[in-house]
Amino acid sequence: MIVNAEIVSVGTELLLGQIVDTNSAEIAQRLAELGINVYFHSSVGDNPVRLAMVLATALTRSDIVIVTGGLGPTEDDITKEALAGVTGRPLELHPDALRHVQSYFQRVGREMTDNNRRQAMIPRGGKIIDNPRGTAPGVYLTVGGKHVFCVPGVPTEMRTMLLEGVLPMLATVRGNGEIVSKTLKFYGIGESALETEVMDLLRSENPTVAPYAGLGEVKLRVTARAHSADEARRMIEPVVDELFRRVGKYHYGYDDDTLESVVAGMLTERGMTLATAESCTGGLVAHRMTNIPGSSAYFNKGWITYSNDAKARELGVDPKLIEEHGAVSEQVARAMAVGALERASASVAVATTGVAGPGGGTAAKPVGLVWFAVATAGGEVSAHSRQFQGRREDIKWRSSSEAINFVRSVL
Amino acid sequence: MIVNAEIVSVGTELLLGQIVDTNSAEIAQRLAELGINVYFHSSVGDNPVRLAMVLATALTRSDIVIVTGGLGPTEDDITKEALAGVTGRPLELHPDALRHVQSYFQRVGREMTDNNRRQAMIPRGGKIIDNPRGTAPGVYLTVGGKHVFCVPGVPTEMRTMLLEGVLPMLATVRGNGEIVSKTLKFYGIGESALETEVMDLLRSENPTVAPYAGLGEVKLRVTARAHSADEARRMIEPVVDELFRRVGKYHYGYDDDTLESVVAGMLTERGMTLATAESCTGGLVAHRMTNIPGSSAYFNKGWITYSNDAKARELGVDPKLIEEHGAVSEQVARAMAVGALERASASVAVATTGVAGPGGGTAAKPVGLVWFAVATAGGEVSAHSRQFQGRREDIKWRSSSEAINFVRSVL
Repeated sequence: MIVNAEIVSVGTELLLGQIVDTNSAEIAQRLAELGINVYFHSSVGDNPVRLAMVLATALTRSDIVIVTGGLGPTEDDITKEALAGVTGRPLELHPDALRHVQSYFQRVGREMTDNNRRQAMIPRGGKIIDNPRGTAPGVYLTVGGKHVFCVPGVPTEMRTMLLEGVLPMLATVRGNGEIVSKTLKFYGIGESALETEVMDLLRSENPTVAPYAGLGEVKLRVTARAHSADEARRMIEPVVDELFRRVGKYHYGYDDDTLESVVAGMLTERGMTLATAESCTGGLVAHRMTNIPGSSAYFNKGWITYSNDAKARELGVDPKLIEEHGAVSEQVARAMAVGALERASASVAVATTGVAGPGGGTAAKPVGLVWFAVATAGGEVSAHSRQFQGRREDIKWRSSSEAINFVRSVL
Repeated sequence: MIVNAEIVSVGTELLLGQIVDTNSAEIAQRLAELGINVYFHSSVGDNPVRLAMVLATALTRSDIVIVTGGLGPTEDDITKEALAGVTGRPLELHPDALRHVQSYFQRVGREMTDNNRRQAMIPRGGKIIDNPRGTAPGVYLTVGGKHVFCVPGVPTEMRTMLLEGVLPMLATVRGNGEIVSKTLKFYGIGESALETEVMDLLRSENPTVAPYAGLGEVKLRVTARAHSADEARRMIEPVVDELFRRVGKYHYGYDDDTLESVVAGMLTERGMTLATAESCTGGLVAHRMTNIPGSSAYFNKGWITYSNDAKARELGVDPKLIEEHGAVSEQVARAMAVGALERASASVAVATTGVAGPGGGTAAKPVGLVWFAVATAGGEVSAHSRQFQGRREDIKWRSSSEAINFVRSVL
């Protein structure tokens, strides 16, 4: 029974702090979701002696060792040499690996150099792991009942090899060869409130349910292992259903969905257009809504009306409203949304007005108070306010999420 | 002579991949700039035995051990216990540490619990390190000629303690007690081109010069150690002068400056206002310019004119120009900037129009082609284009940087 794993990341640029080690966190997440405990991460530079020390330590204390980095073609890339030294398995030219490297160069139409032949050398008894995104094949080696996986350090190459190569191999070793994950995304509920609702499910072992928190958003990833992918998918279904029963009203999407991509999909599907009228978010709502490829289908116009004059002149907000209720008010938010809707001839318009801080707050209108309004071509206008905490940039971000989610809920 | 250091980060949430370890990279950067080699990073969970193993290994192979995390008040916070066990220095209530914890609670007006007394326990012979941002004081312990520093895991607390406590202590140990850093920021030159220009300086030992790259920006941090801060500052001066001689034309700011904060400062100082007319950047220029506190002083109006109709109706761009030259053209960029300038009665206006991709590119106007224009109240209009590479979001980001830098160069 495999119980614990260790992650070793290799690269002098990690030790100098020139890059942050995001690979270790990603590998650790995926292993945890398989029910594999990660007890240690280690980072070490491109130095043969110190890398060998770290690998030797890892092999004494961990059942699974995942090494990321040091598989490239240069003299600095020494992961396989160090592994060969520590395990007594000399490097040999592996025909499949050579074909892998050659076919990569053919595919991208570049000349293969002698250096690249080094990438086809594998410790004796090792297997190669396909690298669909780069030259260097990965390596899988079992030594004295321990399982060692060497994967690239480039995050995109590492991720693909992890998901398509390493995890299925690990699942096979554990006797259930297929892994299926589904991520549910939530807005409008905090991390700890969500965890409280689903606490018992977070303790289940197969499928596992793992929470991840972002700024104003939370996601739950459900992961099942089974003998077939279909079986794994069937195991996920009741868990997802149960999550929907408990916290479904906060659910907005799956996997790579974002609030903006979900709203973009709804608008595109219905042939609708969105207009934005932003005060405190300063263009962030429009920026997020135009991050989606093809956004010109549903977005054609937005305003950033920071000053009172801009609200009046560009959106037709009655200056008396501003005078009477202040720029940060339900009345002004509604008038901004209606003005934007009409001037853009849009199907739906969203408006934000608030105090992003750190200055400008008052007792009645403190920093973090934001009013939101959505107007639709059908003539309906709705509005609400939120009180956010945090730094100026956090308040802007949370306000933009709230605005986009508001559009979603109206649609 | 102290030569090498090791960083140990403590926390189960690191091992599970729930948070990415940014502390290690930040500590490593600062140590490298002091000329201290970091040979190992290790991460370990909140487990007494495994933490003790990692600390024992670190103390055998490294002269300096910096432990981050596990100083909090809960039962899971076991860094000091593990250190006490490994070094044979029992934990004792440290009067200064107790005063530190008490004064923190007084300052924030909260009740101190018994748990928090644990934060005042220090291994015998240890010194405390002030924590201006939190309850837990840091610990400095020398054991058999090795130097151990325990700092918090919360990044803001860690950073302040590192810069104000740990680094000066390390400099004292090395016999030059003061450290001064100055970061120079550059725009418009790539990382490798910049490194080529200053390669010899990157090899100097005191002051050190360290390069860091961001998306479309590069910075160089110059760090000197000396017996006094004044002396360190004097040592930095000629290096900074030399950097200016070589790459000064790409320099835009220092330390925490950003392109947007530098432009915001120029606008505020001169009592000028900025208007934005964005097509492909979709609000990102306005978003970045309104991330600066007090931005309402210089920003009151911006447009996102995605469609041709929006460019014509909101900014007065002659539809014939669009028909003749296309929306992505010098002529339309110029007309957008002039339209925004006039309609906002601004001192300066910037316009962007381009192909953010991934779709929409043609042979004549490929993905990544972006036109920029800046118009000033004096009646001058200038324009240029750039061809960017990368994903949609990268192209938007680089375009927004180019637009903001364009405003800077015109001002």
